[in-house]
Amino acid sequence: MHVTLVHVRVKAEHIEDFIAACKLNHEASTREDGNRRFDILHSKDERGYFVLYEAYRDAAAAATHKQTAHYLAWRDTVADWMAEPRQGQGFDGLFPQG
Amino acid sequence: MHVTLVHVRVKAEHIEDFIAACKLNHEASTREDGNRRFDILHSKDERGYFVLYEAYRDAAAAATHKQTAHYLAWRDTVADWMAEPRQGQGFDGLFPQG
Repeated sequence: MHVTLVHVRVKAEHIEDFIAACKLNHEASTREDGNRRFDILHSKDERGYFVLYEAYRDAAAAATHKQTAHYLAWRDTVADWMAEPRQGQGFDGLFPQG
Repeated sequence: MHVTLVHVRVKAEHIEDFIAACKLNHEASTREDGNRRFDILHSKDERGYFVLYEAYRDAAAAATHKQTAHYLAWRDTVADWMAEPRQGQGFDGLFPQG
């Protein structure tokens, strides 16, 4: 699996908006061909901190995600709600395989 | 979902050993009742850096994992292979639900 952990810090006044936008992105992204996981994680310790766990079959499927209407809508919708630029970390998903 | 991201830095000479131990832990953990994901991630940028993405139905299921023979075997097997103490981050998995 081609995996990205996206770390996002959200302004306090937009946390509920951000969760709603991520729900839409999750629902559409998990219907993409090649998507393996698109999990939205909310920190137990820091209220404004979220991680998006995005796993795709391969790099091409992940790149296709970046061209979808739902990704572009999410990106533009949440841009001003972030307290700082989001940070992505790239991983090879070793297990499960494929 | 009850989610933990476990960040592990492994000594260079034990990377292959660590991957083999994590494969066993992955295979057994994903058969636990209440397990949702047990994904082993290997950084694309830092060869000794791994993340274990552990998602359970609830906190009780995650606590039960810590009592299993395969968890205890993994913990003891890899202890001396880590370059620094591992770090866990706790999250509520918002989506998918359940």
